[in-house]
Amino acid sequence: MATTITPWEVKGEVDYEKLIREFGVSKIDPALLKRIQKHTKNLHHFLRRGIFFAHRDLNFILDEYEKGNKFFLYTGRAPSGNTHIGHLVPWIFTKWLQDNFDVELYFQFPDEEKFLFKDELTLEDTAKYTYENMLDVIALGFDPKKTHFIVDTKHANLMYPQALKVAKRITFSTVKAAFGLTNESNIGSIFYTSMQAVPVFLPCVIKKKKMPCLIPHAIDQDPHFRVSRDVIPKLGYYKPASIQCRFLPGLQGMHAQGKMSASEENTAVYTTDDAKTIKNKINKYAFSGGQATVEEHRKKGGNPDIDVAYQWLLFFEEDDAKVEKIYRDYKAGKLLSGELKAILIEKLTAFLTEHQKKRKLAEKMVDTFML
Amino acid sequence: MATTITPWEVKGEVDYEKLIREFGVSKIDPALLKRIQKHTKNLHHFLRRGIFFAHRDLNFILDEYEKGNKFFLYTGRAPSGNTHIGHLVPWIFTKWLQDNFDVELYFQFPDEEKFLFKDELTLEDTAKYTYENMLDVIALGFDPKKTHFIVDTKHANLMYPQALKVAKRITFSTVKAAFGLTNESNIGSIFYTSMQAVPVFLPCVIKKKKMPCLIPHAIDQDPHFRVSRDVIPKLGYYKPASIQCRFLPGLQGMHAQGKMSASEENTAVYTTDDAKTIKNKINKYAFSGGQATVEEHRKKGGNPDIDVAYQWLLFFEEDDAKVEKIYRDYKAGKLLSGELKAILIEKLTAFLTEHQKKRKLAEKMVDTFML
Repeated sequence: MATTITPWEVKGEVDYEKLIREFGVSKIDPALLKRIQKHTKNLHHFLRRGIFFAHRDLNFILDEYEKGNKFFLYTGRAPSGNTHIGHLVPWIFTKWLQDNFDVELYFQFPDEEKFLFKDELTLEDTAKYTYENMLDVIALGFDPKKTHFIVDTKHANLMYPQALKVAKRITFSTVKAAFGLTNESNIGSIFYTSMQAVPVFLPCVIKKKKMPCLIPHAIDQDPHFRVSRDVIPKLGYYKPASIQCRFLPGLQGMHAQGKMSASEENTAVYTTDDAKTIKNKINKYAFSGGQATVEEHRKKGGNPDIDVAYQWLLFFEEDDAKVEKIYRDYKAGKLLSGELKAILIEKLTAFLTEHQKKRKLAEKMVDTFML
Repeated sequence: MATTITPWEVKGEVDYEKLIREFGVSKIDPALLKRIQKHTKNLHHFLRRGIFFAHRDLNFILDEYEKGNKFFLYTGRAPSGNTHIGHLVPWIFTKWLQDNFDVELYFQFPDEEKFLFKDELTLEDTAKYTYENMLDVIALGFDPKKTHFIVDTKHANLMYPQALKVAKRITFSTVKAAFGLTNESNIGSIFYTSMQAVPVFLPCVIKKKKMPCLIPHAIDQDPHFRVSRDVIPKLGYYKPASIQCRFLPGLQGMHAQGKMSASEENTAVYTTDDAKTIKNKINKYAFSGGQATVEEHRKKGGNPDIDVAYQWLLFFEEDDAKVEKIYRDYKAGKLLSGELKAILIEKLTAFLTEHQKKRKLAEKMVDTFML
């Protein structure tokens, strides 16, 4: 399967080394990890394990931070369906950054994006998903005093005039090349990237202060910021810095699909799935790196590198020692595929049960997060 | 000079008969005038003299009106400079329609349009011109209870979500063909037409009621509504009807420039020009249809059809008998070019002196007109 990576579609097996070269981002190297750790004491397991693997201008962010010039965080979610656990990855990391650097976060819900790119979606649909997605963000425990939700259609009075300044400096040729749009693309989809650029400098507009911006995001969103990075300094603000993560694979595995898809139910575990559903989905669909029979598995061992249950544990089991033991035991054939899945099921069920409790409490908190 | 007519540029001599065919609008014929007059008692001199010369679906508007289903009016002004007397033409007519049919008017100030199409304009500039232009609209005497100003950047919370619904149904190919945009056009200019479409149905959204919309406008704006007419019924609203006027010629005459330009000072008389400036501009710049010497003029007579002073009187002198006498006397050589200009100067000075008084009073009324 050919690989396609745009902000709207990730298809095929992703070669992250190739992406680093093609997108022109920088790999996060041990020196940079050490520099981060100076401020955070511990390194998040997403950094230790290369899940957040690339960046742009992170050294600039740390230079400014060390001079006392704090950055703010910007991330987002384009509502088009219920939240799955893949969506949580950049958000979990963003919360860690907020906690460790004690910074403000602007969280954008561009509720028009998927409306413009998907025929069947209405603005009523995306409004519903915006609310549902917000509950998941809040449930992760962001500081309501330092976290500000932006909803494009609700904050259009703030967003649209700023987006115009960006839009005036981007031609159709540029978005055509960056996003693969065509003459038959609708004019809303052509304009859209300028709305995604706004939170990079909106806090500076609001606070009348030039501040650095750091964007944690999944690598497929990079084209947006690649385009706007050239424009934003012309408006008098810093080029945004960013830190990029790889995708949580879908249940069918990395080779079958680039990333988990919210619109294909059996590739994803949703944040609202109950224990039984989680168990069924993983047992039934999670691509296994194990052998065909128990005998063969005991003899040859499994392949954790293509095993979805193991890959998911890399994201959701923080304890390095546990993860390493699982890796060794699975490879040695000591741990069976079903046993590996059981470990993941237990871990994910515990996590999501807790998440769902917090998600319920979040219903009363949405207003306090709105910009 | 080749003729160019887009919503952003009118160049060269305009052949209105050709425009009717090319744009696909209908000529206003005597039968339609009669039908209008049934409701208005008198016909506005802009109708009597063919200044408003074309329409789309005006019979539909009258059908519905006669059934008791009132239309609302929508017109607008893209702020990019001070108001000149050419801008007033569709507004004066719109007020006449409001008074005679007792209907609501939605007046759009798309303050982003010229920002997107003119390199040098900032949003601060267009905000300033928006305010100045509003004073001129108010000075014409619109009913504040029935007149609602929409400013795109100020009403973006209302406008942007609706514009998205339009934008989703218009491709780049369509705007490329309709407006002559290119791959190097900025993505804001590509999106813009969807904002101009919104007031066609925004009142229906606000009042939760399907109502016909009539748009009085200068003919160069027709491409916008030609594009959106196909889209709007798909959103559940009536196709907008429209009534189109020709351009007030610039001082240098119809052959030199298609319409008065706010950015070329010596082609226009501004609403804020004082008596001395009006007199100087007309005497110095108004293209004359008179002969080279008084003797020759007395002998051969002047040509009112190319004489700017006469053409302007067609717009600003309501009294048909007076205008006809001027026409005959000028053609016969009885009236000299300087005398004709003096008549215009007197008429326009009286009109603008009164306008400027009302414009001053308007400063306190802007808020009452805001939607």
